[in-house]
Amino acid sequence: MPSTDTGAEHGNALPILNEIRHALARLLESGETSVIDLGALPMGPQDEAELLAALGEGEVEATIHAGGPSNVRETAFHGVWLLTHRNEAGETLARFIEIAFVPELLMSQAEDVADSAAELAKKLSEAQNR
Amino acid sequence: MPSTDTGAEHGNALPILNEIRHALARLLESGETSVIDLGALPMGPQDEAELLAALGEGEVEATIHAGGPSNVRETAFHGVWLLTHRNEAGETLARFIEIAFVPELLMSQAEDVADSAAELAKKLSEAQNR
Repeated sequence: MPSTDTGAEHGNALPILNEIRHALARLLESGETSVIDLGALPMGPQDEAELLAALGEGEVEATIHAGGPSNVRETAFHGVWLLTHRNEAGETLARFIEIAFVPELLMSQAEDVADSAAELAKKLSEAQNR
Repeated sequence: MPSTDTGAEHGNALPILNEIRHALARLLESGETSVIDLGALPMGPQDEAELLAALGEGEVEATIHAGGPSNVRETAFHGVWLLTHRNEAGETLARFIEIAFVPELLMSQAEDVADSAAELAKKLSEAQNR
C-alpha cells in the first residue's frame, strides 16, 4: 500500500486501527476495555502522527492534575480515548489509547468515594455540633 | 448557626452538603447516581460560593466541546462533581452537582460507540481494498 501524506491512507497506522476495531467490538460485546501502549509499538513519529490524524478529535478533553499532568482526549470515534502522561516539566512520558466507555483515569474509585463520604460525614457532624 | 466568611462553617450550604452525604451513601450502596440542580435551590451567590468552597477542587477537570462548552470539575470529595453548562457567549446557563463514579456527560454512550465501530470498520475496509 502506498504511503501518502494526504491522511486518506494510514500506512503503518492500519494495524493499530484494526486492533482498535477489534477492541471496540469486544467493548460492545462484553464491556471489556483495552489499552494500547503507543510507546511499546514499533512506530516512528510519522506513524504516530498518521494514527492520531486518523483518529481525529472528539468532544471531551480532560486534565488530571496529579503529579505530572495527564491529558485525556476523546477521539472522533466514541469509545476511543487518547491518554498522554507528562512529567512536571511537561515532557511526554507515555501515550496510550484506551478503548472504553470512559477511561479508568477519569473515574472515582469506590475506596476513594468511601473515604470522601466518611470525611464529609465527619465535617458535617462537627459543623452541626458546633 | 452564625454565618461567617471563614469557610470553617457553611451556613446555607449545610443542607446541600447533607444531601450530598446521603447521595454518596446511595452511590456506595447501590451505584445509584444523583444530580442536584443548583439553579433550582433557594441559594444566593454567597451561599453558592460557600458551597463550592466547602466542596473544594479535586484532580480531574474536563471540558466538553459540544455547542456551548460544558465544564466538569471533580471536587475534593471523590464521587462529587461540579458541572457547569455555558452558552456560546460563555455565560453560565446551569450548574449541577452530580454524585457518581463518573459524570454521565464524560461517558461514551453505547449507541455512539456502535456507530463509531461501524464507521471505523467501513474506513478500514475501504483502505484495505484500495
